[in-house]
Amino acid sequence: VGFSGADLANLVNEAAILAARRGKTTITADEFGESIDRVIAGPQRKSRIISPREKEITAFHEAGHALVGHLLPDADPVTKISIVSRGQMGGYTRFAPEEERTLATKKQLIAQLAVALGGRSAEEVQFSQITTGASNDLEQATSIARAMVTQLGMSEKLGPRTFGKREEMVFLGREFAEQKDYSNEVAEQIDDEIHSLIDEAHSVARRLLAANKAKLTQIARYLMEYESVEEQALEQLLSSPTPDIPLPVPAD
Amino acid sequence: VGFSGADLANLVNEAAILAARRGKTTITADEFGESIDRVIAGPQRKSRIISPREKEITAFHEAGHALVGHLLPDADPVTKISIVSRGQMGGYTRFAPEEERTLATKKQLIAQLAVALGGRSAEEVQFSQITTGASNDLEQATSIARAMVTQLGMSEKLGPRTFGKREEMVFLGREFAEQKDYSNEVAEQIDDEIHSLIDEAHSVARRLLAANKAKLTQIARYLMEYESVEEQALEQLLSSPTPDIPLPVPAD
Amino acid sequence: VGFSGADLANLVNEAAILAARRGKTTITADEFGESIDRVIAGPQRKSRIISPREKEITAFHEAGHALVGHLLPDADPVTKISIVSRGQMGGYTRFAPEEERTLATKKQLIAQLAVALGGRSAEEVQFSQITTGASNDLEQATSIARAMVTQLGMSEKLGPRTFGKREEMVFLGREFAEQKDYSNEVAEQIDDEIHSLIDEAHSVARRLLAANKAKLTQIARYLMEYESVEEQALEQLLSSPTPDIPLPVPAD
Amino acid sequence: VGFSGADLANLVNEAAILAARRGKTTITADEFGESIDRVIAGPQRKSRIISPREKEITAFHEAGHALVGHLLPDADPVTKISIVSRGQMGGYTRFAPEEERTLATKKQLIAQLAVALGGRSAEEVQFSQITTGASNDLEQATSIARAMVTQLGMSEKLGPRTFGKREEMVFLGREFAEQKDYSNEVAEQIDDEIHSLIDEAHSVARRLLAANKAKLTQIARYLMEYESVEEQALEQLLSSPTPDIPLPVPAD
Amino acid sequence: VGFSGADLANLVNEAAILAARRGKTTITADEFGESIDRVIAGPQRKSRIISPREKEITAFHEAGHALVGHLLPDADPVTKISIVSRGQMGGYTRFAPEEERTLATKKQLIAQLAVALGGRSAEEVQFSQITTGASNDLEQATSIARAMVTQLGMSEKLGPRTFGKREEMVFLGREFAEQKDYSNEVAEQIDDEIHSLIDEAHSVARRLLAANKAKLTQIARYLMEYESVEEQALEQLLSSPTPDIPLPVPAD
Amino acid sequence: VGFSGADLANLVNEAAILAARRGKTTITADEFGESIDRVIAGPQRKSRIISPREKEITAFHEAGHALVGHLLPDADPVTKISIVSRGQMGGYTRFAPEEERTLATKKQLIAQLAVALGGRSAEEVQFSQITTGASNDLEQATSIARAMVTQLGMSEKLGPRTFGKREEMVFLGREFAEQKDYSNEVAEQIDDEIHSLIDEAHSVARRLLAANKAKLTQIARYLMEYESVEEQALEQLLSSPTPDIPLPVPAD
Repeated sequence: VGFSGADLANLVNEAAILAARRGKTTITADEFGESIDRVIAGPQRKSRIISPREKEITAFHEAGHALVGHLLPDADPVTKISIVSRGQMGGYTRFAPEEERTLATKKQLIAQLAVALGGRSAEEVQFSQITTGASNDLEQATSIARAMVTQLGMSEKLGPRTFGKREEMVFLGREFAEQKDYSNEVAEQIDDEIHSLIDEAHSVARRLLAANKAKLTQIARYLMEYESVEEQALEQLLSSPTPDIPLPVPAD
Repeated sequence: VGFSGADLANLVNEAAILAARRGKTTITADEFGESIDRVIAGPQRKSRIISPREKEITAFHEAGHALVGHLLPDADPVTKISIVSRGQMGGYTRFAPEEERTLATKKQLIAQLAVALGGRSAEEVQFSQITTGASNDLEQATSIARAMVTQLGMSEKLGPRTFGKREEMVFLGREFAEQKDYSNEVAEQIDDEIHSLIDEAHSVARRLLAANKAKLTQIARYLMEYESVEEQALEQLLSSPTPDIPLPVPAD
Repeated sequence: VGFSGADLANLVNEAAILAARRGKTTITADEFGESIDRVIAGPQRKSRIISPREKEITAFHEAGHALVGHLLPDADPVTKISIVSRGQMGGYTRFAPEEERTLATKKQLIAQLAVALGGRSAEEVQFSQITTGASNDLEQATSIARAMVTQLGMSEKLGPRTFGKREEMVFLGREFAEQKDYSNEVAEQIDDEIHSLIDEAHSVARRLLAANKAKLTQIARYLMEYESVEEQALEQLLSSPTPDIPLPVPAD
Repeated sequence: VGFSGADLANLVNEAAILAARRGKTTITADEFGESIDRVIAGPQRKSRIISPREKEITAFHEAGHALVGHLLPDADPVTKISIVSRGQMGGYTRFAPEEERTLATKKQLIAQLAVALGGRSAEEVQFSQITTGASNDLEQATSIARAMVTQLGMSEKLGPRTFGKREEMVFLGREFAEQKDYSNEVAEQIDDEIHSLIDEAHSVARRLLAANKAKLTQIARYLMEYESVEEQALEQLLSSPTPDIPLPVPAD
Repeated sequence: VGFSGADLANLVNEAAILAARRGKTTITADEFGESIDRVIAGPQRKSRIISPREKEITAFHEAGHALVGHLLPDADPVTKISIVSRGQMGGYTRFAPEEERTLATKKQLIAQLAVALGGRSAEEVQFSQITTGASNDLEQATSIARAMVTQLGMSEKLGPRTFGKREEMVFLGREFAEQKDYSNEVAEQIDDEIHSLIDEAHSVARRLLAANKAKLTQIARYLMEYESVEEQALEQLLSSPTPDIPLPVPAD
Repeated sequence: VGFSGADLANLVNEAAILAARRGKTTITADEFGESIDRVIAGPQRKSRIISPREKEITAFHEAGHALVGHLLPDADPVTKISIVSRGQMGGYTRFAPEEERTLATKKQLIAQLAVALGGRSAEEVQFSQITTGASNDLEQATSIARAMVTQLGMSEKLGPRTFGKREEMVFLGREFAEQKDYSNEVAEQIDDEIHSLIDEAHSVARRLLAANKAKLTQIARYLMEYESVEEQALEQLLSSPTPDIPLPVPAD
């Protein structure tokens, strides 16, 4: 979330290439928008045919991320939702921090957890069934919760210290292993704290979506119709009173 | 299950080579069918002599996979059964998803578990004896169940998070190790959940096959006679009322 | 057990070399028999002098393997016994599966366990003393029992799944490690199941040999006299009523 | 803390380079001050824009380190505070030992722990909220507490011995792993002792800052105004009676 | 124990070199005896000065090995005792198996354990004090006891199986690690069994030496006088009735 | 402790180089003394300025080592004490074994433990405060106690065996890891035994120094005055009745 200087340079480069391909001599907002999407989620896969059922699931999944993000005051504002598949992802929701931020509060991280679990929660609320589509979300949520407990001192029980020593293997050019420098009892406490954080965030996401199911459905239907939404349309979609529309029949 | 673009390119290539070997100037359905089998199970081993007893066991084993797949609504439809040995495998059953699918629901994964254990279950139901022939099936079932619990957040007890950090060793060009980033207590819970999933699926497969033993025998006898079956013949075989045929004497 | 195509090619090659050394222009059954022995147990070590005591222990040890194999219906038939030392081995017993087999039943594996422990059991029954000579047998038995429990799903308690993930280290060109992907509690259950399988097989082998001690002695004495036995002589030796011969005095 | 001979050589070198860049032929105190900052915290990042909210949090964070250091008699004297971001750090506080020191007493290490946790404690006292900004402090505190227990024999319960064997991997050119040469029970005791040390230091830091909240606010406001403070201004700021100033409204 | 063909070739070579150095044209028994010693314990260290106290401890230590070996019927016969230091060793006792042996019985291994602990036991019996001189003996005894339990199936409790998988690292050209393929509970049982074997052997060695203290002293005094003893002199020394000699005053 | 032949050759070489630098044509006792110091503790660091407080702590620390060594009959005699810093060390105490020794008794190792902890104990007795200066001593004491328990069979509870298998990594040219070949329960027992040995030695050292505090102070004051002492002066200092001198005021 947020772009580094290197990311921005990359974006400009991508946009310039796109403009050149399109025979343009200047880069327009179109190329920038497209290149932002590419950097986050990989190039569009136009050729892939998605079944109506998967489209519906994806629409509710992304609507779940976006709606939880919109409803939680400590979450970053939603700037785009798309169910056009890119790279490995069936869809994505983009968030923009209001200011260039280098610090995050504990409340903001807890909100990020709920947003990450918003897609899975939407599947539960809408279909009473879950899919394999949330695995990246789960990995991200676990990684945030683990960092809160083991690197950021945000567990009252475990206190303001760090756990585990990260090792980089120089000859591999990347992180290789995290050395367990604590007892199995502390490992259990860490597991319990991560479980609590995930559990609470999951519960928040489900409650928010269940209480706003009509809005969730509205966003998902919009996505099934238009595939992506951003800026004013998004603003209006999230904030408008839920219209009196017939709900789609659950897919499962 | 399902073919990627690269798989398809590979298939076409294989089929073209087969056609060329046979002196044909166009690729026909024969070459495509053969190359699909090759990609899934390796080239036919014509030279290998199989004993009647092993042939019978293999026939019941594959009939078990196919019948469980046919009977479970959440499993993919069966498209071919063969007991012609290819590569390391004594036989195989091919499934085709109805649509190009990138998401699988929890129910579909549970059905896959039962299908994977259908071969072993058929051995139990028919011969009251088990063989070494199911080891790949067991590995596949374990791998699915483990992923459900540790990567896909499909265990209610363990919650929507991931467990273990996969490491790739760059200089080996492949995955090397999965780092255990949890306590022994969580490892126990993971073991229990995998055990439950496998146990339940095994039980489903056995009950289905015991309740449909006449059909199981009919399919196995067909395979012992014709070695493979697909398309309409398969459709008819699976759906027809069980004929009043004398059952073969159990081999053991 | 059983020979792959590569093994057969190797055998023919070995036999041709032997024939050439002996100035023959055709390969006879002699050369084939010799080359089969070489592939299984390495070239004869004529020079090594074996003490009468070790010869006696080896004779009973091999007679134990052979007799347990002969008495268990699920074991492969015995085709040769030899106490001529080859390579590292003091002697060996050769088994031939009746048909080219790629599947083994649980009963056959259990019989293999008893046969593997037949040598050690013969030492116990005859000498009430054990030696270091059984270490390869114990390793083989452990390896079979472990595979039954962890790879072949043959433990009712642990169920139809696999345990442990085998890793190959590409740069070593061989298997390096088996990753423990389960809790210590499952490790205990695996240990218990392996223990039960080994214990039961050991008990079977000892009971069979104690109940057939006269036959065991007859085979051992034959081996001490003639050093090896195969085909009809072996058939007759195993099946004949035990002659009324004076037993040798126990060595220990 | 404190500079080695090599550090000093490095400082002089840095200062000489700075002077040369500025067209000076002699190195002045300016260049020395700047190069001391560089060696501790990396070159200034002028381009980075910091939000007012982050600036306020950083100011209180650094004021927390400095004030705890000033109030604890066993801590080194504070020589500079800055919230100008350098390298990865949002700000820093510099301490100078009174004499070139090679020994540290247990009391001094305990004071270092409280100073390291002073930043996090200030966030708690001022904002009743914590951020990700303390992760380096937590790592440092953990590392000191661990060394006290495992390398310096400063835990009465565990006694005057060392735990763990550090290994250097020559081919990596750096420390790779610390071998656990003790039981899980000792690992638990080590965890408990580290927890106690951290907990006590955290409690000391919070109590000191809560009792001196007006002074904490005064320093933070000064930093928000002037960004850094050293020498006499710092001396005066820390020692002066707290002025009767209106406190800023908490940011959260 | 016992020499392989390669060992013998090596011995002859060593003896030939010694003879050549001494200007002889034939190899005599002197050269052979010397080269046997060299192969077992390295070249004599004439230059090293040994204190009278260390000489006495070494004499009793070696006398302990020899006397336990002489008194236990399952131990190999003693063929030489020497306290002339060679290589790293302060002294050594040589045993020769009566026949070229490739099998060892459990009783013989138990006797080897007692012999290995005979040196340490002699220190205890004679000086009521122990030294660092027994470390190689302890390593050897542990290694034998561990092999009995984990590789040779000689523990009744653990049964006729093997434990642990030895790994060779090809690129190191040597064994690197033994993989623990069992639970901590089995590890405990292995520890207990090794402890029992060692404990029992230690107890046997101590009781034998305490009951034959006069003979132990006689051998040790002989060694302090003559430094080494073999063949008839050794035979006579071990078997003769203990002479009525004044015992040396204990060194400690 | 004690010098090997290689050490002696090294010493002579060092002394020759020193003599050459000083323009001498023969090596005198001066060069030998200086080169002995260099081999033990590295070249003198004349340039380093030590604070009076650190000098006092170091003087008491070294006096502690020396006085414990002097008072324990099983410890080696003290031959020199110095607080001139060399290499990493603030000071050192030199011990000389009375004879060239290759065996050490358990009593001597226990005395070595107390001597190693004598420095830390002196800090406790004199200043009721401890410093980081003892870390090498603690590492040495731990290493001796561990070897007594795991390599030298000197724990009655664990018996005359070894624990752990040392591995050398050939491609690293050094020892890399000690393989834990025992259960966690044995690891606990090892920890307990090491703790007991260290605890007892610490207690001995503290009691000796507390009972001889006047002598401890006398030695420390001598060192603060003259920086090093050896031979007759040392003999006299250690053995003389404690003079009636005013004690220095404690530094802390």
